[in-house]
Amino acid sequence: MPTVFFLSDFGDGDGFAGIVRAVLHRLVPGIAVVDLAHGIAPFDVAGGARTLERAAPYLGDGVVLAVVDPGVGTERRGVAVRVGRSATGASTGFAGPGPAWLVGPDNGLLVPAARRLGRIDEVRDLPGVSTFDGRDVFAPAAAHLCVGGDPAAIGPPADPAGLVELVERGPDGPAAPKPDGRGELRVPARWIDRFGNVQLDLEAGSESPWGGPWPDAFDVGVEPPVPGAPGRIRVRCVRGFGHLERGELGLLADADGRWALVLAEDSAADLLGVRPASVGTTRWVVLAPAGYDPR
Amino acid sequence: MPTVFFLSDFGDGDGFAGIVRAVLHRLVPGIAVVDLAHGIAPFDVAGGARTLERAAPYLGDGVVLAVVDPGVGTERRGVAVRVGRSATGASTGFAGPGPAWLVGPDNGLLVPAARRLGRIDEVRDLPGVSTFDGRDVFAPAAAHLCVGGDPAAIGPPADPAGLVELVERGPDGPAAPKPDGRGELRVPARWIDRFGNVQLDLEAGSESPWGGPWPDAFDVGVEPPVPGAPGRIRVRCVRGFGHLERGELGLLADADGRWALVLAEDSAADLLGVRPASVGTTRWVVLAPAGYDPR
Amino acid sequence: MPTVFFLSDFGDGDGFAGIVRAVLHRLVPGIAVVDLAHGIAPFDVAGGARTLERAAPYLGDGVVLAVVDPGVGTERRGVAVRVGRSATGASTGFAGPGPAWLVGPDNGLLVPAARRLGRIDEVRDLPGVSTFDGRDVFAPAAAHLCVGGDPAAIGPPADPAGLVELVERGPDGPAAPKPDGRGELRVPARWIDRFGNVQLDLEAGSESPWGGPWPDAFDVGVEPPVPGAPGRIRVRCVRGFGHLERGELGLLADADGRWALVLAEDSAADLLGVRPASVGTTRWVVLAPAGYDPR
Repeated sequence: MPTVFFLSDFGDGDGFAGIVRAVLHRLVPGIAVVDLAHGIAPFDVAGGARTLERAAPYLGDGVVLAVVDPGVGTERRGVAVRVGRSATGASTGFAGPGPAWLVGPDNGLLVPAARRLGRIDEVRDLPGVSTFDGRDVFAPAAAHLCVGGDPAAIGPPADPAGLVELVERGPDGPAAPKPDGRGELRVPARWIDRFGNVQLDLEAGSESPWGGPWPDAFDVGVEPPVPGAPGRIRVRCVRGFGHLERGELGLLADADGRWALVLAEDSAADLLGVRPASVGTTRWVVLAPAGYDPR
Repeated sequence: MPTVFFLSDFGDGDGFAGIVRAVLHRLVPGIAVVDLAHGIAPFDVAGGARTLERAAPYLGDGVVLAVVDPGVGTERRGVAVRVGRSATGASTGFAGPGPAWLVGPDNGLLVPAARRLGRIDEVRDLPGVSTFDGRDVFAPAAAHLCVGGDPAAIGPPADPAGLVELVERGPDGPAAPKPDGRGELRVPARWIDRFGNVQLDLEAGSESPWGGPWPDAFDVGVEPPVPGAPGRIRVRCVRGFGHLERGELGLLADADGRWALVLAEDSAADLLGVRPASVGTTRWVVLAPAGYDPR
Repeated sequence: MPTVFFLSDFGDGDGFAGIVRAVLHRLVPGIAVVDLAHGIAPFDVAGGARTLERAAPYLGDGVVLAVVDPGVGTERRGVAVRVGRSATGASTGFAGPGPAWLVGPDNGLLVPAARRLGRIDEVRDLPGVSTFDGRDVFAPAAAHLCVGGDPAAIGPPADPAGLVELVERGPDGPAAPKPDGRGELRVPARWIDRFGNVQLDLEAGSESPWGGPWPDAFDVGVEPPVPGAPGRIRVRCVRGFGHLERGELGLLADADGRWALVLAEDSAADLLGVRPASVGTTRWVVLAPAGYDPR
């Protein structure tokens, strides 16, 4: 069954996503259009790219159509990206191949998901033609590819190495991928979800940046300080929301494999006063192991 | 055709609902996923339960998948609930059976809809495994059941009497299911919809709580008073929006069979300053028949 | 494949749209429900009508179901409108017919889209029965028509000339379809999309209202002035977003064929302080060709 997985920052008020869906149904009667998300913040390419990357391992056979495109109507290219699909399903236990193609603007939106799906084997250029390329360029290309159409018909081949990489906006100043002399690590808020969980740009791997296993607790703050927000807070690392008292801030390895600051049944982001880095916050989350002795 | 009816508080910005849809499509190619609502207020189990209950009589054959789950990652159980379907369609005139199974967290979300659909005949326990059980537990269980899979494969049987009942948050202090000596009845705002209609926790049955038929008009107020909002207002009971003058507050038996405060083409909730009980308001709506004489 | 194109102001929080989808699936198993938009502002008939009109040329065979219905529960009629489909696809290059029927309230919502699809050949009256006609009247009618059911079964014929025309709310005072003595043209903001692009009620035809070709730049303002907003701004006409400097306001012929005030990667509406005319703004956008000499 021809399937398109569709993500955008179109929202649900203007009919943009609806027109794209209608075009897909018109070109491929019987198509399954699986909506991934359309409430990506307007113009937030990094937020869209991360959402798509998180979804990628769960997608089945079909074509990804993604449109977060502040550059529509400029010289930016559109692209169709074909991925080798050997890795798909390995991490999730699902059988069968994932998507073969990803279609959208060449602005970094597609690349993280494509890499998570497999090797990038082929790129086709899709020249922009309008101020609504989702309708006029990307949907027709995705429709063509999801029924097995010849890629040569949608545009000339391009060099995978020429794909635009995601440029992330974040706080000004130097990041700290490694702890400083006082044991403090500065990381951006990578994603704040609808529930106010604050995913940090910090993978919950087997070894901590301080060396050895992860501590049981951290002292956590925000820099520069947020007026009205608490200063440093002692935060326990827990295995699930259920191990937190009501109103207690915790650190949790989330469903995406990263550390997240969470508050049981409430918004950690509101408590701390942080916003996602991708929509222009200028603040760092600062972590140090509780009782860290820099000696 | 395998069908899943899907409700959540996931919104449309993070890809949570999209990933669940993708998992369903991956496990059951050709599945119909019917989105019921994803804009339930975050963590609002009672709001989700009522929305699902309202929708229940209109659902056809298939499986309900509902996720409003503040307890994800705690010890709360997930469940699959099977309903006897004799009652389905009786109230709506639709032929054929309704959903056979409802899948989601055991926190009261599913029970009102299950009761509206019929008798609860079977319960299966679904142990939580992650901080995203919608993706990792509930979607696979719903996919399994909607193609007629053996219920024994998804989890051990459990006692229907052990299902968690919905605990509703509401205003503090005693409710007044019966009018007091001054003829005043205190009820929570049960549901405020997108248009600002205020559904009261008061069924528009054949007999009024004051005895006999419903009066033609009420004096309506809010307690404690809302600063800046009007005090007691004389409100007519009308049969439709069209019987109201522009700007006139009215009482209407709504499409759900309950009394609702409505304002023609405007928000009654904004006028009165009330919010839905389930998201933490501390105010009652007070009604007394117009010109009531408590003698 | 039976297809319904569905637009409403139901949002995604109350289950209204979900119940309508469920009714459609129940009455027509295997139906494709293509969501066009559900975030139309509550009660904004003009906004819904324009969104539907923009989508119309891209819709394939099927039935349009549209519900923006401030008059539900009044004497307003519901209607099913059949269009001759000769014109469909001509403007978009898609092969095959567009929708044959449009179903919804008779309040002007359907007429602009119907006209864009073709000639109105037949109208059927659908008497309202409830405060949720989307569920109880329009969805069953759309389901009936999308499988080729006899139109006579849904209601009596009515005169196409009797259809309610769209009445648009807009700024008070006289519009200026032609420039005044100072070369100033006053137009409403016709549509403000999620990205803050301000579509003007001004078609980007071959000849400008000042006679001859369009100028290269305009002086643009808002009347009455918006406190805190800039006064007159010199605005270049550009062919795409890419021809604007960051932070520069521009005029662009948009994907809908009308002039729009746009700001690269930011909201022109926020900069200017304008809101869409259909939801009650009282301000005009004023344009005059840059350096216009009224002599």
